[in-house]
Amino acid sequence: MAKNAFYAQSGGVTAVINASACGVIETARKHSDKIGTVYAGRNGIIGALAEDLIDTSLESDADIAALRHTPSGGFGSCRFKLKGLEESKAEYERLIEVFKAHDIGYFFYNGGGDSADTCYKISQLSEKMGYPIQAIHVPKTVDNDLPITDTCPGFGSVAKYIAVSTLEASFDVRSMAKTSTKIFVLEVMGRHAGWIAAAGGLVEDQGIPVVILFPEVEFDKEKFMAKVKAKVEEHGFCTIVVSEGAHWPDGKFLAEQGTRDAFGHAQLGGAAPVVANMVKDELGLKFHWAVADYLQRAARHLASKTDVEQAYAVGKAGVEFAISGDNAIMPAIERISNDPFEWKIGKAALSEVANVEKMMPMDFISDDGFGITDACKEYLLPLIQGEDYPPYKNGLPDYVTLKNISIDKKLPAFEV
Amino acid sequence: MAKNAFYAQSGGVTAVINASACGVIETARKHSDKIGTVYAGRNGIIGALAEDLIDTSLESDADIAALRHTPSGGFGSCRFKLKGLEESKAEYERLIEVFKAHDIGYFFYNGGGDSADTCYKISQLSEKMGYPIQAIHVPKTVDNDLPITDTCPGFGSVAKYIAVSTLEASFDVRSMAKTSTKIFVLEVMGRHAGWIAAAGGLVEDQGIPVVILFPEVEFDKEKFMAKVKAKVEEHGFCTIVVSEGAHWPDGKFLAEQGTRDAFGHAQLGGAAPVVANMVKDELGLKFHWAVADYLQRAARHLASKTDVEQAYAVGKAGVEFAISGDNAIMPAIERISNDPFEWKIGKAALSEVANVEKMMPMDFISDDGFGITDACKEYLLPLIQGEDYPPYKNGLPDYVTLKNISIDKKLPAFEV
Repeated sequence: MAKNAFYAQSGGVTAVINASACGVIETARKHSDKIGTVYAGRNGIIGALAEDLIDTSLESDADIAALRHTPSGGFGSCRFKLKGLEESKAEYERLIEVFKAHDIGYFFYNGGGDSADTCYKISQLSEKMGYPIQAIHVPKTVDNDLPITDTCPGFGSVAKYIAVSTLEASFDVRSMAKTSTKIFVLEVMGRHAGWIAAAGGLVEDQGIPVVILFPEVEFDKEKFMAKVKAKVEEHGFCTIVVSEGAHWPDGKFLAEQGTRDAFGHAQLGGAAPVVANMVKDELGLKFHWAVADYLQRAARHLASKTDVEQAYAVGKAGVEFAISGDNAIMPAIERISNDPFEWKIGKAALSEVANVEKMMPMDFISDDGFGITDACKEYLLPLIQGEDYPPYKNGLPDYVTLKNISIDKKLPAFEV
Repeated sequence: MAKNAFYAQSGGVTAVINASACGVIETARKHSDKIGTVYAGRNGIIGALAEDLIDTSLESDADIAALRHTPSGGFGSCRFKLKGLEESKAEYERLIEVFKAHDIGYFFYNGGGDSADTCYKISQLSEKMGYPIQAIHVPKTVDNDLPITDTCPGFGSVAKYIAVSTLEASFDVRSMAKTSTKIFVLEVMGRHAGWIAAAGGLVEDQGIPVVILFPEVEFDKEKFMAKVKAKVEEHGFCTIVVSEGAHWPDGKFLAEQGTRDAFGHAQLGGAAPVVANMVKDELGLKFHWAVADYLQRAARHLASKTDVEQAYAVGKAGVEFAISGDNAIMPAIERISNDPFEWKIGKAALSEVANVEKMMPMDFISDDGFGITDACKEYLLPLIQGEDYPPYKNGLPDYVTLKNISIDKKLPAFEV
């Protein structure tokens, strides 16, 4: 008889992680001879530990299809990392109990680097703890830092959002620069890598002066001010894209500028206001600043069509690989060509994915450290191609909220 | 012979002010027997004073059409307010000189409240200074504070952007709330009025708990904390939309929380981080915050179709009114019905527009001061209806940058 499957979303959500969920569930439904019910963990792996399993078979085909155009994690996600098999033995044993109780033979884990590591450990349960399960990691992360795969679903849509927002705000400040705002600072995500910040550089071809502050490049205030000054002299205005991970040579984030509130507490600021005020103090230029935060990774209204398609494809391929007997693998996106952009889904061994972080190549950053190179543009541009608008109802996107009904528990409670 | 026209953009730009420019120029081109060349002021009225006039006849029909889908001010805007006819006599005399030198008989001023006042004064030049000119004010402002007109072009698109962004970020935080972020704070524009903040309330019908901090309601920390706590207890998370104009009973903005930088300077913060840190200190909840700033008013990629159509219509009507002999008027949007939404363009006397600020009706704010009423929803919803996507090229919106070629100057320089 067909084994059931477990699917969970892990870590920070994205505009397209639900498209992967859609790919997993729709594909499983097509192969009901091989896969029984897909149970989703409520709030990720915590749902498995707590035996809080959502019965996705109770969701209509239309609602599952609507996941493709709905941002966020439809089943809830969590920040929870399982440790090694020895250290977290009780948790792994609990997982096996839950899987056994609900006849689960497939484990689909939709996440980033930490999740790949967890998924790899689950894949070894078969061998190490005698429970037969196939574990497939479905890649997702706006950080774009998983190895082997050309990109990580979720990143392309953030890149598109940041590029479009940078373009639009730059047009705005260009209009205002004669008598008012001359500097616009946009803070973007990326504590360790500048992938997202790099996307701001894609607007340079439209004549927009952009200065990027990458986490990969130690902040040099003097050089930065000279660069901004030169851009303003040439163009009359300048846009600055600052990664939240931009930092001083001593490693201190720009956001931690020693600012104190009325009670003397260190103020959790944001890099954008710090940079903006710095430019005002040094160059006397009027500024505006924005912090995109969750807006950037939730912006399904502006998703990259390429990204949506890839997100769906890795979910679909995950199920197909599982059916064909694979274990301990991750569907990986392989770029075939840039122009025309072609790609296919390959297969990466989790042993080579777990605990490996892909950094941005240094030849993607221009020599002065404030911009991106042609090689970077060639890499990024295909990832933001195409629009994939959600349907709208009464002026707002018609996103789905699932029923998310849990199945009856069979086991005693477990303290997560 | 047909008189020429002067057109200028004034104050903060919007996602659709160029759609009004498109309406003005396309309509003028259709009536070349009545209107000669449309000259645009480079950087607004400053362009007229400096005799820096852009010859829009040198722009192709396609580029003028593309203004309809391009955010920002295509000819540049400025923050520059002419004073009264007596106080700024030199400036008004200069304007007349420039208008005379270039045979300008029509003055189209595209702006908000201050601009309406300037436009009204220009309309009196004919009578008071003996120069025949017809002055038409084309309404624009994201602040939505012009009287008589049902709404101000520019506002509907900001409202749509804020509603969609609030929805998307709320879906995100809902996914994360179990183990991580429970509070999301979005700061929006609106120093004096809560029109834009109100748009965040439109997502409540989708089950999203939203607490709004309006400039119209004095901040009551205790009441606010109780409200947020109750929402989090009920829903597991809460979204807070804070207007930049939210303030304490003594009038001090929330953004000016006495925060000092390392040098003791008052830190220009932003209300969002202040509110977020306050919630963390009081309730111990993990938060994320965003400041939309220019992104919200430049987001042509997410413009409201209704807004684009109204922006174009007021530009078109402005020219038609001028041709029919009107002076000292503003095309005003008149709402005929809500469902189906119908509207038409009427005519407002500038004498009744200048120096009148339309505030948000207090019955638009819920009794507890943290939400919007059904009356407010009925007003807002029609304004965000419909999508009007720009064309895309290589992954980015294909916005136009005009050639903007100035005509030869005929007059001596003038110090602006």
